[in-house]
Amino acid sequence: MTQADRWMLPDGIAEILPADALQIETLRRRLLDLYHSWGYELVMPPMLEFTESLLVGMGRDLELSTFKVTDQLSGRTLGIRADITPQTARIDAHSFPRAGVNRLCYAGHVLHTRPRTAMGSRAPIQIGAELYGVESLHADIEVISLMLESLQTAGIEQIHLDLGHVAIYRSLARAAGLDEEAQRELFALLQSKASADVQQWVETNVSESRAAGWLRALPGLAGGSDCLAKARDLFAGAPAELAAALADLQTVADSLAQRYPSVELFFDLSEVRGYDYETGLVFAAYTPGYGQALANGGRYNGIGKVFGRDRPATGFSSDLVSLNTLGRTPASSGTAILAPLAEGAEGETLWRAVECLRSEGEVVIFALPDGAEDEVLSRCDRTLCLEQGSWVVKPRD
Amino acid sequence: MTQADRWMLPDGIAEILPADALQIETLRRRLLDLYHSWGYELVMPPMLEFTESLLVGMGRDLELSTFKVTDQLSGRTLGIRADITPQTARIDAHSFPRAGVNRLCYAGHVLHTRPRTAMGSRAPIQIGAELYGVESLHADIEVISLMLESLQTAGIEQIHLDLGHVAIYRSLARAAGLDEEAQRELFALLQSKASADVQQWVETNVSESRAAGWLRALPGLAGGSDCLAKARDLFAGAPAELAAALADLQTVADSLAQRYPSVELFFDLSEVRGYDYETGLVFAAYTPGYGQALANGGRYNGIGKVFGRDRPATGFSSDLVSLNTLGRTPASSGTAILAPLAEGAEGETLWRAVECLRSEGEVVIFALPDGAEDEVLSRCDRTLCLEQGSWVVKPRD
Repeated sequence: MTQADRWMLPDGIAEILPADALQIETLRRRLLDLYHSWGYELVMPPMLEFTESLLVGMGRDLELSTFKVTDQLSGRTLGIRADITPQTARIDAHSFPRAGVNRLCYAGHVLHTRPRTAMGSRAPIQIGAELYGVESLHADIEVISLMLESLQTAGIEQIHLDLGHVAIYRSLARAAGLDEEAQRELFALLQSKASADVQQWVETNVSESRAAGWLRALPGLAGGSDCLAKARDLFAGAPAELAAALADLQTVADSLAQRYPSVELFFDLSEVRGYDYETGLVFAAYTPGYGQALANGGRYNGIGKVFGRDRPATGFSSDLVSLNTLGRTPASSGTAILAPLAEGAEGETLWRAVECLRSEGEVVIFALPDGAEDEVLSRCDRTLCLEQGSWVVKPRD
Repeated sequence: MTQADRWMLPDGIAEILPADALQIETLRRRLLDLYHSWGYELVMPPMLEFTESLLVGMGRDLELSTFKVTDQLSGRTLGIRADITPQTARIDAHSFPRAGVNRLCYAGHVLHTRPRTAMGSRAPIQIGAELYGVESLHADIEVISLMLESLQTAGIEQIHLDLGHVAIYRSLARAAGLDEEAQRELFALLQSKASADVQQWVETNVSESRAAGWLRALPGLAGGSDCLAKARDLFAGAPAELAAALADLQTVADSLAQRYPSVELFFDLSEVRGYDYETGLVFAAYTPGYGQALANGGRYNGIGKVFGRDRPATGFSSDLVSLNTLGRTPASSGTAILAPLAEGAEGETLWRAVECLRSEGEVVIFALPDGAEDEVLSRCDRTLCLEQGSWVVKPRD
């Protein structure tokens, strides 16, 4: 590596410079304040853990995404966190086990070995909220509402919300008598939205004709509010679990439509994201012109079981950097007051004047001798001047 | 690993639970606001970089502290940052190269392969500020002042400030004709404060008697304000560089004594911390009853050279978690308003009342059905009640 390219960063890794950093920090505070005002308590899980804690029960995707290092103290394998949600579940199960509802939120860096999407970041700043201990749909409605408010807080105006339910695919796959391996095969096809491949796979692998028909219909069941009615007709006679999932989707959609009339609601009944991890209602928010989900989440009941406490769980998360890029967090005005250098008694009174202005919220910058033109001076629209023994703030010419 | 201990964390790695997390977040905001008010601009350097960028010119200690992983995209070695200061220097040298003074600040996790002190953390949250482009002592005085204000902001009342200067040891070692290897050997002895070993090493390795006397005197030159006067006598005839370093220490000490009369000043002329990295005045702040430095920093001119831009540099950093533990950030009052669940038209008016209270800064928590006693209810000292068609806040019994 030559001197000239030592500053290069790995693909998918970015540094955040002052203008963006200030906006991201502002948005971070607004979102954490929002979560606080909803009763969500901040936790700061560690950047790294034993992989046995971090990855247990989380499925292969997360394992592949996780950077691993050897712990010099224990000789065991550590993982750098690639997702904060399972860490929060561990906290709910063990370190902060409230008897009833537990509302937790967080914001922090995660690292991925590979970007999850083309041109995606490998170092998002994950921000989110999780709700433990409530099986009721009121919990799902609360976390989706909070996710939508997060996007509005970030200044994202046009929001599309996709709703799905993992139980729809699961119950149909079981009705078709698919074993675990077959379920995963078909899952992969559905996830890649390869409708023709799904048709062919079902034809080859599912003998029972009614179940085959249901599975073939699944990829087509995506769209607006008529989608649920269509599904109720199509899946008449399907397992009760499926009918219950459709009813849940309807309840949640009705409630959100009332609270957030400007948000466009869509349903995707073949939505099977997070098969290893999620257990019920799943959701994702999009905005036009950006191909990835801005925020997503869902039910992941029982994840705490591996830590000794089986709990209902739902939550969402988002990437603060993407939210800032796509939203409109107003930048600060950025003006400042220039202070000259002064010695002795004048220096003392100046120092007190500067401290006072800073405590009132002003930015005060000392003019340090630097042997070059100081770009920072352009930020200063005012200056401190000594007039009749007192330091006063005056406009700069 | 059995189910029961899957929640265990590696040694030196902690998770931060709600009460502490809220205090740390509060302190983080106050400190970043303080740096903002002094004209320091926030940057967010990445969690990982090519080791060739992260470690070049930074010395062996940092290299040993750094977790390394292989980049699946480039096949090259990546390091998880163990120190944000060199990243900031890279930003000043390359990505955000201001013509004159550049004031940058940051707050973020770093990871260390081993704790730097017994019982120390391997995952501090490093917070600090760096000033580039100014050779003058005014820059050293500014960053030390900002470090002291950081500690005061954290509620740390008794502060001891240790001042030293790397040029003192360097100039004496050169006067004694020590080569690079010998300099490092003696450096290690001085760093471990092993005075008898220093005496013996000098006797064996330094033939020139005046230089030997100077080096032997070095470990004894630590203490209060008389220390500098004593050194000026003792080092009469020593290289001019040493006299200049003593004069710099005097100037900085005088200025800080005027600004912060309650801070106790100490000098340690054998202070050689950061030999690989620091180039001039070095400083560290302590509080009684805590053996480690709470914050430290110093001059590290020229670090940007490896990135193509040689600049004067000085700065300081601290661990937010330790600051919070040792200081006294007031916790929030933590009271909240309980909202019942309501359906239909009542649900709509309730939702609007809740949104309004939250935007006014209140914490409003919905009473979700959870089949268990809800501990969260104890946070709520008030509740929303429907009275004559309006939702009003009333005290809870």
